[in-house]
Amino acid sequence: MNESKSELGQYLRGLRTKREETLHQVAKGTDIDSPMLSKIERGERLPTSEQLKRLAKYYNISEESLKVKHTAEKILKEFGANETTYNAIQIVNEQLMPYATKSKKK
Amino acid sequence: MNESKSELGQYLRGLRTKREETLHQVAKGTDIDSPMLSKIERGERLPTSEQLKRLAKYYNISEESLKVKHTAEKILKEFGANETTYNAIQIVNEQLMPYATKSKKK
Repeated sequence: MNESKSELGQYLRGLRTKREETLHQVAKGTDIDSPMLSKIERGERLPTSEQLKRLAKYYNISEESLKVKHTAEKILKEFGANETTYNAIQIVNEQLMPYATKSKKK
Repeated sequence: MNESKSELGQYLRGLRTKREETLHQVAKGTDIDSPMLSKIERGERLPTSEQLKRLAKYYNISEESLKVKHTAEKILKEFGANETTYNAIQIVNEQLMPYATKSKKK
C-alpha cells in the first residue's frame, strides 16, 4: 500500500498546511477523526466517498477534482505501478477519448 | 457489465475465428468449458489469471498482451467509462511514465 506516495494525501495535506490548520481543526470541521485524517494524508487509507465529499466542502474545492485523484490512486493501488498497468491505461485512454473532448469543452 | 464492448473478448473471438475453430475445440484445448468461453468472448465474464494463461498458451500468444487487455477491461468495468475515469488515467499515465520508457526499450 505504501509503495508509491499518495498524490491525493499530499494534496490534502497541502490544502491544510496552506491554511495553517492542524489535523484537529480539520477533524472538527469535517467530522472525520484526526487519526483517520492523518492516515489519509499519509496515503495509508483511501477516503470513502462520504469523506471525500466532506473534505471538498471543507476546503471549498470541487468534489470532482478530489474524485479524480481518488480514482487515480485506486487504479495504482489495485493494479500496481508496472508496465502492464501502463500499457493497459493506454488502451483505456483510447477508449475514453470521447470524454477528453467533453472535458475540454467545459 | 455490458455497457461497453469487451475488447479482450472480441480479440479472443478474433483469434478463434481466424483459426476457424469452434468454441468446443477451444474448450477442449484449454480445459475451459464452452459456455464460459462464450461468456468471455461476449465480455460477460472476465477470465481468471489461470484462464488467461491457458488461452495465451493455446493461441500461442504472449500472456502479457492478454494481461494488458484484461487490466484495461477491469479498469473500465470497475471505474466506468466517464470523465472522472478519463481524468484519473491522465494522472496515472504521468505517474507511470518510467514504465513507458522501459516498454520502448524492449
